[in-house]
Amino acid sequence: MEGALREAVELGRSILGQGAVATYIPELAKADPSALAAAYCGMDGKTISAGDEGTKITVQSISKVASLGLALNICGEETVFSKVGVEPSADPFNSIMRLEMRAPHRPQNPLINSGAILVLSLLPFSDSTERLEAVLDTMRRMSGNEGLRVNEAVAASEKDTSDRNRSLGYFLRSVEAMDGDVENILDSYFRQCAIECSVEDLAAMGATLACGGVNPLTGEQVFPERTALILRALMMTCGLYDGSGDFAVRVGFPAKSGVGGGIMGSVPARAGVAVVGPALDKRGNSIGGVRTLEMLSESLSLRVL
Amino acid sequence: MEGALREAVELGRSILGQGAVATYIPELAKADPSALAAAYCGMDGKTISAGDEGTKITVQSISKVASLGLALNICGEETVFSKVGVEPSADPFNSIMRLEMRAPHRPQNPLINSGAILVLSLLPFSDSTERLEAVLDTMRRMSGNEGLRVNEAVAASEKDTSDRNRSLGYFLRSVEAMDGDVENILDSYFRQCAIECSVEDLAAMGATLACGGVNPLTGEQVFPERTALILRALMMTCGLYDGSGDFAVRVGFPAKSGVGGGIMGSVPARAGVAVVGPALDKRGNSIGGVRTLEMLSESLSLRVL
Amino acid sequence: MEGALREAVELGRSILGQGAVATYIPELAKADPSALAAAYCGMDGKTISAGDEGTKITVQSISKVASLGLALNICGEETVFSKVGVEPSADPFNSIMRLEMRAPHRPQNPLINSGAILVLSLLPFSDSTERLEAVLDTMRRMSGNEGLRVNEAVAASEKDTSDRNRSLGYFLRSVEAMDGDVENILDSYFRQCAIECSVEDLAAMGATLACGGVNPLTGEQVFPERTALILRALMMTCGLYDGSGDFAVRVGFPAKSGVGGGIMGSVPARAGVAVVGPALDKRGNSIGGVRTLEMLSESLSLRVL
Amino acid sequence: MEGALREAVELGRSILGQGAVATYIPELAKADPSALAAAYCGMDGKTISAGDEGTKITVQSISKVASLGLALNICGEETVFSKVGVEPSADPFNSIMRLEMRAPHRPQNPLINSGAILVLSLLPFSDSTERLEAVLDTMRRMSGNEGLRVNEAVAASEKDTSDRNRSLGYFLRSVEAMDGDVENILDSYFRQCAIECSVEDLAAMGATLACGGVNPLTGEQVFPERTALILRALMMTCGLYDGSGDFAVRVGFPAKSGVGGGIMGSVPARAGVAVVGPALDKRGNSIGGVRTLEMLSESLSLRVL
Repeated sequence: MEGALREAVELGRSILGQGAVATYIPELAKADPSALAAAYCGMDGKTISAGDEGTKITVQSISKVASLGLALNICGEETVFSKVGVEPSADPFNSIMRLEMRAPHRPQNPLINSGAILVLSLLPFSDSTERLEAVLDTMRRMSGNEGLRVNEAVAASEKDTSDRNRSLGYFLRSVEAMDGDVENILDSYFRQCAIECSVEDLAAMGATLACGGVNPLTGEQVFPERTALILRALMMTCGLYDGSGDFAVRVGFPAKSGVGGGIMGSVPARAGVAVVGPALDKRGNSIGGVRTLEMLSESLSLRVL
Repeated sequence: MEGALREAVELGRSILGQGAVATYIPELAKADPSALAAAYCGMDGKTISAGDEGTKITVQSISKVASLGLALNICGEETVFSKVGVEPSADPFNSIMRLEMRAPHRPQNPLINSGAILVLSLLPFSDSTERLEAVLDTMRRMSGNEGLRVNEAVAASEKDTSDRNRSLGYFLRSVEAMDGDVENILDSYFRQCAIECSVEDLAAMGATLACGGVNPLTGEQVFPERTALILRALMMTCGLYDGSGDFAVRVGFPAKSGVGGGIMGSVPARAGVAVVGPALDKRGNSIGGVRTLEMLSESLSLRVL
Repeated sequence: MEGALREAVELGRSILGQGAVATYIPELAKADPSALAAAYCGMDGKTISAGDEGTKITVQSISKVASLGLALNICGEETVFSKVGVEPSADPFNSIMRLEMRAPHRPQNPLINSGAILVLSLLPFSDSTERLEAVLDTMRRMSGNEGLRVNEAVAASEKDTSDRNRSLGYFLRSVEAMDGDVENILDSYFRQCAIECSVEDLAAMGATLACGGVNPLTGEQVFPERTALILRALMMTCGLYDGSGDFAVRVGFPAKSGVGGGIMGSVPARAGVAVVGPALDKRGNSIGGVRTLEMLSESLSLRVL
Repeated sequence: MEGALREAVELGRSILGQGAVATYIPELAKADPSALAAAYCGMDGKTISAGDEGTKITVQSISKVASLGLALNICGEETVFSKVGVEPSADPFNSIMRLEMRAPHRPQNPLINSGAILVLSLLPFSDSTERLEAVLDTMRRMSGNEGLRVNEAVAASEKDTSDRNRSLGYFLRSVEAMDGDVENILDSYFRQCAIECSVEDLAAMGATLACGGVNPLTGEQVFPERTALILRALMMTCGLYDGSGDFAVRVGFPAKSGVGGGIMGSVPARAGVAVVGPALDKRGNSIGGVRTLEMLSESLSLRVL
């Protein structure tokens, strides 16, 4: 197992030079493009890692899985999916035009930015910090790591620059797809994106989803089995932005990526498998990470499709 | 002349029941849908009116002509049109999707909302009140009415509800089409839309444009002739939202409408012709007003096309 | 007058090098990019020309004005505009996406390709040659030139290559915007686009529209006044593809361009003014021709806006 | 097993009344909306069925999987995916607008109509019957049923009415995404869609894909393992039109649907599972069939996500 991880990371490293770190959030531009690590967390909670496993990244879009799981837990499936679709989007993650173009004017799925912002608005919190704490708590329970925290420098950096997310938030309100105070909701959103974690945290989170919602490290049922199933299904069809179809061919199991360079994979009833590697491909996915997962999928026979 | 105006207003009145006042800005919903008035201001500055000529409306989108004229005066044609196009848009006035869909990601023209917001951002004012005062001053000089002022109740009403304009503003910044503080710019925008005027004020403003930029009441050169010409040309192709083509067929001279129910027409070297009538058609143009102008265009031979 | 024409053509010539002849129709690629001519036809039918006035071009999109006029004559305004809109389109002339994107799924106006194909389908002819003859006859009467004929080499060249127009035709049928045999209709369309004429023919055609539908050379009432008015209005807002707004600012009178390099202008109650010059700008309009008309508009005070 | 199939079909029957048979192809409108059947084909080739298992349907879009597999076999992965993408589309299966809207102007994936037409154009056949025979042969080998044949009445019916597919074909050629004779390619396409089969045939086809390309009834390696994997991955993300995400949540294994009412499912290394039921939901998927598969997925633990 360790050998497989090491070998896969080495293969991933060989193409890091073709990627680049995200620059639209200034703090992310400081990440180390040469870092790469992988981790595997089995159903017994045992976690193995390889590569630059000390690397910390911010979860960015991976947090959308946690906040959606929380919303499904609190509000129920029916309420959530009356407000946001479950279909893949062919557009970039921050696209707005489909919201105007086609009725119903609601986000295509909860894993694009507009959908994730809307999901946050459904949570029954009026205080942005309470809302953030609920998502952070969910992520701590998914990872079994009580020490997860927001990187406030990154959070501030997102807040300063994220005009596109503001545009999405106000648009959603203008078409009555969303209620609530946009700035307040975005404040939680920017901070949940900036939650910092390691590759082992991500592997544990993926393992929790793989294990029907039960964290294999702590034994806690973080999500009901149905919620875990929905999250895995959405990760399979929409988890890697407009590279989801390519990932299904190359890797073949549910996963969610973030522009911080993390990818959280979940092989049902088998394992959580994760990578971190801040150098991104053109679609915003960790370029070395996808390559690493592709090799692991083959060498460890993780493919489910 | 008076007879022609009276007769045209009576014809316009006959279809008021098919329209409705704008409701998306709460204060506008209080307007009287049965009001209708028309005015004609010749090149000698003499103004004649008919109908409910005491009716006051807020200028709304008609203000976009004044702020564009001001920006052309201050920044020059080249600068302004490097940032915003001059082509008609087939989309509704508050549409966002073309900004994302097609490069260059800039507003199609200065008379749709995104374009008007961008034009405001070009003015060299950092204080929203100074910026508003400059536009208000321009409109006072166009109308020759020093008493023009902002209806603050309407301005506040716009500010509370205008999520779509916020979305446009933040989108423009996210694609680097616009610089500046969005809230600050929108503050001026909401207030310039809420400038209150009468049908005679609008006729005088149209006459100023018809007269090569010279206000025929005061003799002041408000705009250079080239600016007046540009404004008239844009009004001709883009002045009535996605009803501009229909207006060109039915009425046939440059005009600009607003959802307050005003239409400011400008017959080059001939007259300013205006109507106010808060009952709107589906595209947001004064339903009785367009009918009135259609008849006046015929009875007074005002068509230029 | 002759001096003004000569001077304007000389100015136009100076920028011919920035344009290029249309290449998507192989036969058009053979046109001479250095040719440029202008003509003026007054309300007395007297025509003056300058430059390479012997140059023959194919009318291409200019024919859309003739076929629309014919359809208005035969089918009536109400029928025609129940099937096709009158609003400018922000899309290229051969765009299809708006037909799918927005209900009603009908062409935005009769001067884009989809609209012109649809207009042809409304004519009561089942034989493509009869249909073509009717349009050709209209154009002969507009120009007063019985010798106008189809350039069959260009017509064949269009037919071989015009996949986009086929796509438009079949799409219109698939959304039930159009009835009839697509290939049969396109056969007329390709041939009407290939009608050959000179700059003097175009000036006479523009003069007929300027003169309320009466050909000033022959005295024949080709169109009722209302039809001439509608055609002029549509030319003003939609006549130069997605360069119509720019043309309104720079030139300021109704005109229709074609990718053969012709532009037919119509100054109401004043003159037909035309240019031919096969070198095109990026939007498909004669680059030297627009410049020539811009200068003529100023030197002869032809602007109506 | 038989009990599970019977029970699932009964559940599926209960909602048939909410669906309707496809009507846009006249011959399909004759299908029996009350028919419903299911079949399961294990890795041993043993097939069990339940419900109206004698029902014959035409495969319609399910044929896209066979023709794509054939193209991958003949042309190779690299060539095929240089011409067509692998990403899910948020648009209806017959949508054209994205082809124009976004570069590269190529189909989003091979399972929407434009993609399937393009894939056919890549096959090295100039004769439409030869091309069709190659696809039919592939489907016979996938199903192990030498008796599969085209329903010529349905094929003719498609040909008469499929203006949209013609529009797609000509559009693809106009943007140089596709070469070849559109009518010739469409002739094969219409006929491959009209290949007739039973629910057991579909289950066997799904089993072939599940079994790494080896038909478990005949033992023939129809596709290399890599091709089978690619087909399953695309079915997972794009197999049920714009209902693919919903299907991933509710059913959770790779499948491809057709408007004839068939769905061919493929559970890797486990089974082919299929349904036929001509009553469709709004997205064009068998309404009772999806419900049946949802229940089977649960009762037989077939979910892979």
